[in-house]
Amino acid sequence: QSNVSLYGLADLSVGRTQAPGGQSTNSVDSGKMSTSYWGIGGKEDLGGGLSAVFKFEQFVRMNTGAMGRFDGDTAFSRTSSVGLSSASLGTVTFGRNSTPLFVSTLLFNAFGDSFGYSPSIRHYFSSGTVTGDTGWNQSVMYASPTFSGFRFGAIAAFKTGDAATDGKNWGLNFSYGNGPIAASLVFQDVKKDSAVAALDDTRTVQLGASYDFGAAKAFAQLGSIDNKTKDVGYDIAGLGVRVPLGAGAAIAQWSRIAPDVGSDRNTLSVGYLHTLSKRTELYAVAMSDKIDNLGTGKSYSLGIRHKF
Amino acid sequence: QSNVSLYGLADLSVGRTQAPGGQSTNSVDSGKMSTSYWGIGGKEDLGGGLSAVFKFEQFVRMNTGAMGRFDGDTAFSRTSSVGLSSASLGTVTFGRNSTPLFVSTLLFNAFGDSFGYSPSIRHYFSSGTVTGDTGWNQSVMYASPTFSGFRFGAIAAFKTGDAATDGKNWGLNFSYGNGPIAASLVFQDVKKDSAVAALDDTRTVQLGASYDFGAAKAFAQLGSIDNKTKDVGYDIAGLGVRVPLGAGAAIAQWSRIAPDVGSDRNTLSVGYLHTLSKRTELYAVAMSDKIDNLGTGKSYSLGIRHKF
Amino acid sequence: QSNVSLYGLADLSVGRTQAPGGQSTNSVDSGKMSTSYWGIGGKEDLGGGLSAVFKFEQFVRMNTGAMGRFDGDTAFSRTSSVGLSSASLGTVTFGRNSTPLFVSTLLFNAFGDSFGYSPSIRHYFSSGTVTGDTGWNQSVMYASPTFSGFRFGAIAAFKTGDAATDGKNWGLNFSYGNGPIAASLVFQDVKKDSAVAALDDTRTVQLGASYDFGAAKAFAQLGSIDNKTKDVGYDIAGLGVRVPLGAGAAIAQWSRIAPDVGSDRNTLSVGYLHTLSKRTELYAVAMSDKIDNLGTGKSYSLGIRHKF
Repeated sequence: QSNVSLYGLADLSVGRTQAPGGQSTNSVDSGKMSTSYWGIGGKEDLGGGLSAVFKFEQFVRMNTGAMGRFDGDTAFSRTSSVGLSSASLGTVTFGRNSTPLFVSTLLFNAFGDSFGYSPSIRHYFSSGTVTGDTGWNQSVMYASPTFSGFRFGAIAAFKTGDAATDGKNWGLNFSYGNGPIAASLVFQDVKKDSAVAALDDTRTVQLGASYDFGAAKAFAQLGSIDNKTKDVGYDIAGLGVRVPLGAGAAIAQWSRIAPDVGSDRNTLSVGYLHTLSKRTELYAVAMSDKIDNLGTGKSYSLGIRHKF
Repeated sequence: QSNVSLYGLADLSVGRTQAPGGQSTNSVDSGKMSTSYWGIGGKEDLGGGLSAVFKFEQFVRMNTGAMGRFDGDTAFSRTSSVGLSSASLGTVTFGRNSTPLFVSTLLFNAFGDSFGYSPSIRHYFSSGTVTGDTGWNQSVMYASPTFSGFRFGAIAAFKTGDAATDGKNWGLNFSYGNGPIAASLVFQDVKKDSAVAALDDTRTVQLGASYDFGAAKAFAQLGSIDNKTKDVGYDIAGLGVRVPLGAGAAIAQWSRIAPDVGSDRNTLSVGYLHTLSKRTELYAVAMSDKIDNLGTGKSYSLGIRHKF
Repeated sequence: QSNVSLYGLADLSVGRTQAPGGQSTNSVDSGKMSTSYWGIGGKEDLGGGLSAVFKFEQFVRMNTGAMGRFDGDTAFSRTSSVGLSSASLGTVTFGRNSTPLFVSTLLFNAFGDSFGYSPSIRHYFSSGTVTGDTGWNQSVMYASPTFSGFRFGAIAAFKTGDAATDGKNWGLNFSYGNGPIAASLVFQDVKKDSAVAALDDTRTVQLGASYDFGAAKAFAQLGSIDNKTKDVGYDIAGLGVRVPLGAGAAIAQWSRIAPDVGSDRNTLSVGYLHTLSKRTELYAVAMSDKIDNLGTGKSYSLGIRHKF
């Protein structure tokens, strides 16, 4: 056949998990630093700078072998898309695409896409602040080429059902990267319901930036989410740093989410990534996750992350 | 290990879908021209013209990342089989095999295996006329080598349960191909129930032919289905044409299904396939699907189909 | 990407299945000699004798295309693990690992891992004597290097829930192999419940040995299982032989399970494996499975087993 790639990431750890105000449990966990997955993808050169591109990517909870991020998740919920990519005109993909807001959130914090330990991922996504998931079904996405360091992108997703409360999603992102500096501005509007439930309508604005000083790389993130269904607003601020150290790097990330109504949440994660190769690292990470008037969750993990 | 192939097809489109007498919806769809899937397969040369062959093929609804053609479909419902292939004696495969009736239906109509737009696929399979699915569980299939253009095949499937209404399936096909001409005659008898429900018993006869004039390829199909459980018969007639045009081809296919009892259905699909490479094409297709006394569904799709 | 392997096994057969005291059924079956599966795995050389290793392995019921060993089984229930392997220090893997007891059971009987025909697999696992499955979720496993023919291993699995009846699992194995002789001693203690149900607590001790005389290889197995929840004990004894014969081998295995309370069960399987290549064989196998005071099940299968 053709040059199809088989790739993915395996992340397993042992550790202690505690939600704010909750009991702690010890466990063998999958995907604490990066959600484990495998995928099939490829790119076909069509000539004239044009290519066809496709991806099927499946999350796996490797501690049990279960498929998806949770029971009932779709099989290829990480990405399933096909489209055309032009060196001069940009890339259009159809299907299930990761949102620019999710990509920007993971790029501008020191813990990346860690659903276990990134305070940013926690405050935007895994605590339910931003609705509509990190990838959108029935979507069309566009990513521009880079013009003097600038890029922009757009995503739109069709409504799922016929309910009057259902609607379309859209997102826009503007990015800049030049040597040590990188920055991103993202807008996102969620009105589309999921296949199984009505979702709150939310609008999000997020600004992210990073600067690589060489001895350290600093991250900053500011976001505002407006939940129109509940008429509640949220402000999120994040700061992080990554310091190359020995055969690896020390990382730290703090984020605070302040809702209009209810308690503030302050989350601080620190860790060390020990590099065994470009594809494999061991990690030791810890998090203090405090919700005012509720309590502090203290978690840690010792694990291995392997890209293939 | 060995030379295992990883292959498949990604088909995504945007468009409008309307059932006869129904509301129209706009959506991003998977598999409108060919059902999207990925697969693993291989062939081991055993010497003396004998090979071992196997396949695992999984449908994916790429617009959501869901596995299978519908919720509850088995993981490898496209094919899962293993067997022996002999250059002189033919091929025997065990497992879940696509039926000769399905293969003949897709070969002798201009829209191939399109569950979205092929009038033939629609009248035989997706409207439930032929029972027992397009692939059979617990089946044994035989395909002969080609003798002076002639081939034949047979398939049989064991009954699933103990119910008195349950039974075995069988199918037979005879094919001829020589230069511009091709033809096929298929018989199929379905008595086997599915794992979850009793199915109507149906017997089907289908004759298909195509002729390649060079400037155009013409398709004709005649079929008769006898639903023994309901004591209803159906006649299906189809005509189609594929005309190479520019960097691609224009295609048109008409089919009519006339039941003993109830309304006739006339379906006409037209489209243009724009070839970007041997593996990738863009398509624009439209369909008028009319059920007498009910209404006409008008659908169209603009999409990309990529083989890998 | 990297050198990722795609591999697996396809086993399909036709035959007759009868449980002791039950009706017989004829069917096309998957995995009668080895459970069919496909997998993705890889090994990255990290230098200094150290490697990163990972595996995702999915069972498939190839006669229907369904995923897993049964409806509701996790997607990658054969194995999903990642870890480090050192030539001098041994291998540690995290995730879902096959237990040493299962591996020892399959190594020291003539029918290997056959859930259809191995009397040993039947008496230890598929009749529910040993609880807690053949692979453990949330587990950490260690396998030593070989020291003068000796190896040892250990596995532990975290408890799943908070119930007072839930607990941890552990297993230990000691193996020896030198020329024609091989032996294994395994201890296993199961207290961990499954994600969906409480399981009986069981403790198992098993001794296995094999000797290759050249003209034949003999297998012997002795095991004792203590079901602490039900306060019932089981003794299992097994003997087997594999005789190279023509282009293949004749195999026979007998096993008896004697519970403290209830009826003895005697199971005898015989068969011939016809080798087509290193990876492909045809098989004809039969089993007599007798439970005293209940009846005898007589089963046979004719099939093909293909490794890829």
